[in-house]
Amino acid sequence: MAAPIIILGIDPGLANTGWGLVEKDASKLRALAYGCITTAASEDTAFRLKTIHDEISAVIERYHPCELGIESVFFGANSKSAMATGQARGAALVAVATMQLGVGEYSPRQIKQAVVGNGSADKEQVQYMVSRILGLDHTPSPDHAADALAAAICHAHLCNLRI
Amino acid sequence: MAAPIIILGIDPGLANTGWGLVEKDASKLRALAYGCITTAASEDTAFRLKTIHDEISAVIERYHPCELGIESVFFGANSKSAMATGQARGAALVAVATMQLGVGEYSPRQIKQAVVGNGSADKEQVQYMVSRILGLDHTPSPDHAADALAAAICHAHLCNLRI
Repeated sequence: MAAPIIILGIDPGLANTGWGLVEKDASKLRALAYGCITTAASEDTAFRLKTIHDEISAVIERYHPCELGIESVFFGANSKSAMATGQARGAALVAVATMQLGVGEYSPRQIKQAVVGNGSADKEQVQYMVSRILGLDHTPSPDHAADALAAAICHAHLCNLRI
Repeated sequence: MAAPIIILGIDPGLANTGWGLVEKDASKLRALAYGCITTAASEDTAFRLKTIHDEISAVIERYHPCELGIESVFFGANSKSAMATGQARGAALVAVATMQLGVGEYSPRQIKQAVVGNGSADKEQVQYMVSRILGLDHTPSPDHAADALAAAICHAHLCNLRI
């Protein structure tokens, strides 16, 4: 029987970067841990990005995931928010690449389809199904952590995982 | 007499990240080194970002700059290019924050004003003045390296440098 594998999900943002860890044992999924890295707008951007990088590195060192699920680059946002999200995504992905995780990138539609079965599902439906799929008796909060867990679930479902 | 200080300039981009080192000795500026980190579109994004992070770290370890000059977040670009540039910027700034450099961010207009004396100067004027100011007998290429040196020159002129 294959050993369980651990998948990290990240929802990057300069102010709030959500993360979540999902263990896949055969077809069963459960949440190991989740959280949100917050940085203050009053801090230097470089310091905020280093915080995101270092906290994601610490999560990887603690839980040893071998795979990452992350939302693909989203072009709908305006260029100001795209730049801010891009910087946070870059800081997190440096940590992921340094730790040599496999990376799966998925569109928002793919993630909703994998979690809810409907690519147009709303935020509440995604959060409800994340807690159902992972057997949680509560809705993960903040949103960023739930979105990170959703990306990890999507990767567990869609990727032909290397074990 | 104050010791000379070394300023790093970075022009971040996912495909091409320019860098340049300027030494400021009293009011005299000279180029120490410059270059461009290129990454292939065929590589994973996370791997490309790690390359940018690691190469910038190596430049800092080799030349020991204490300050960074970088173009501030530019909102005019479309969201696709803003996201790509943002990711590269995030990867580079993690290296800069880890090495504890002071950071000065400047608008494109401020950089042109500092280098050419005209905030609306064109690319060729900036490149010409970069080589004049730094006493080079050639125009630094590629453009990304010249733009990085321009950001370092701007920081040397505008920032009340900590020595």
